[in-house]
Amino acid sequence: MSDNILATAPASRTPLTLLGTGAMGTALARAWLAAGHPVTVWNRTPERAAALAADGATVAASAAAAVAANRLVIACLLDDASVGTTLEDADLTGRDLVNLTTGTPAEGRARAAWAVSRGARFLDGGIMAVPPMVGHPESGAYVFYSGSGDLFEEHRDTLAVPAGTQYVGADPGFAALHDVALLSAMSGLFAGITHAFALVRGEDIAPKDFAPLLASWLTAMTSSVQQTAERLAGGDFTGGVVSNLAMQSAGNATLLRTAEEQRVSAELLTPYMELMARRVADGHGDEDTAGLVDLLAARGRA
Amino acid sequence: MSDNILATAPASRTPLTLLGTGAMGTALARAWLAAGHPVTVWNRTPERAAALAADGATVAASAAAAVAANRLVIACLLDDASVGTTLEDADLTGRDLVNLTTGTPAEGRARAAWAVSRGARFLDGGIMAVPPMVGHPESGAYVFYSGSGDLFEEHRDTLAVPAGTQYVGADPGFAALHDVALLSAMSGLFAGITHAFALVRGEDIAPKDFAPLLASWLTAMTSSVQQTAERLAGGDFTGGVVSNLAMQSAGNATLLRTAEEQRVSAELLTPYMELMARRVADGHGDEDTAGLVDLLAARGRA
Repeated sequence: MSDNILATAPASRTPLTLLGTGAMGTALARAWLAAGHPVTVWNRTPERAAALAADGATVAASAAAAVAANRLVIACLLDDASVGTTLEDADLTGRDLVNLTTGTPAEGRARAAWAVSRGARFLDGGIMAVPPMVGHPESGAYVFYSGSGDLFEEHRDTLAVPAGTQYVGADPGFAALHDVALLSAMSGLFAGITHAFALVRGEDIAPKDFAPLLASWLTAMTSSVQQTAERLAGGDFTGGVVSNLAMQSAGNATLLRTAEEQRVSAELLTPYMELMARRVADGHGDEDTAGLVDLLAARGRA
Repeated sequence: MSDNILATAPASRTPLTLLGTGAMGTALARAWLAAGHPVTVWNRTPERAAALAADGATVAASAAAAVAANRLVIACLLDDASVGTTLEDADLTGRDLVNLTTGTPAEGRARAAWAVSRGARFLDGGIMAVPPMVGHPESGAYVFYSGSGDLFEEHRDTLAVPAGTQYVGADPGFAALHDVALLSAMSGLFAGITHAFALVRGEDIAPKDFAPLLASWLTAMTSSVQQTAERLAGGDFTGGVVSNLAMQSAGNATLLRTAEEQRVSAELLTPYMELMARRVADGHGDEDTAGLVDLLAARGRA
């Protein structure tokens, strides 16, 4: 019985093609191979694909041959232009193309139209992980997917092998949009963390004592995400505000004077402070920080 | 027995003086009064102090009289200069002065020397809360304290009434430094959150669907604080780096192009990206983001 399961299980796994065996592609391939999926790989530099043969992958001689081998085709290439170049000579008719190549929302949308016009179903993906996290569900790694809901549903179990799945809509630009939005927010978080450590650097404060205080504080402050979402959805930026923009903006003076005292450049903090000051000057000092979202968007359209 | 406890408990509570009954001072006074502490209050505008009489506070006619009333004196005033002005005519000999007025590390240090020269013990505090959180331990509100360890130990239970306590050292500047460092980091976090919401604003993405994804991601990413602390303590910025500065810096192009596509100003992200690019240009592309801490500090000294 147990032998029987072992003998038949691999055969039931969906075979797939993986284009691009850089660090991320290799991690993905290994995760699928370890789970018993037959995997055909192709890479522009053949040596990097060949390394996966030892793990059981079939190495295709060309991208077109790799695409011809399986209905499910995963692309994890350098950039969006590489996807077009790589698939130039491939017949995509009836193929399910899952694009895990990093790109922008507009690139995801254009690539979807391109793939559909060539007879494929298309799903775009944004990987929220670094390669060592792939294949380790406990790492929290996951992928944003958007585009064909049918494709996603049909291959959901296969897609869930290397990392968690989070389908965010039929718009093929939404996976990249979610990906980039989260990475952008992380960039702000990291900037704040950098400034905080720079302030205490050189003082008799051990990083190991400071770190848990900073981490706990930031974790608690992420609750503002929910509050901002509620204000943006409801359109009320002033009701029940405890610490409004005018008060926060005034408090920024202490942050700037402290940076100066500690001889740390305030360059990472000032743009947000200036945005806040602008909103206050525009007569919205009684608002919550949620009001800054529309001001920032308006500036991008100016 | 129960009656006896109720009758004697209030008498055992340390009496204290509170200078400044703005929103925060009033919240502090109410928390101490509710816990049975005899509280003497003073405020520059007497009406705001008088409102606390209904809660059982004694209203002093002058700051000097308020200070004369109790050994433990809490100041929660507008700014550091107000502390000096308010206490100009007060006799601080033998007093335990706890300064919860917002200020910089240098102000905390100078105010400590000033208080000690006038015969007081001094403890500086930085309140990590907004007034509605005070008196509600479940809110997570707490105060950073630094300065006299003897003062802190002696009044620890009393200080713990309105909010949690976190003593961070004998240097009277450390409370403000910790306070400002955490607020500065929060400012970066909020800037990132603002940019992220601006990116999805105008798209068919409900804030309530987007918010939990963003909050979970940011919560997970706060683990970088611990990693940065370990690198700063150990001085190794390159060992075991998975996504180094060169890779992150290259990836920033996708964030910038997406901001442009979504017509959102990238002004909140660019300073950190420029810092990263500078570090890479300086030949440290193989480093982790921890290397940016010293670059930022160096720029402040330039």
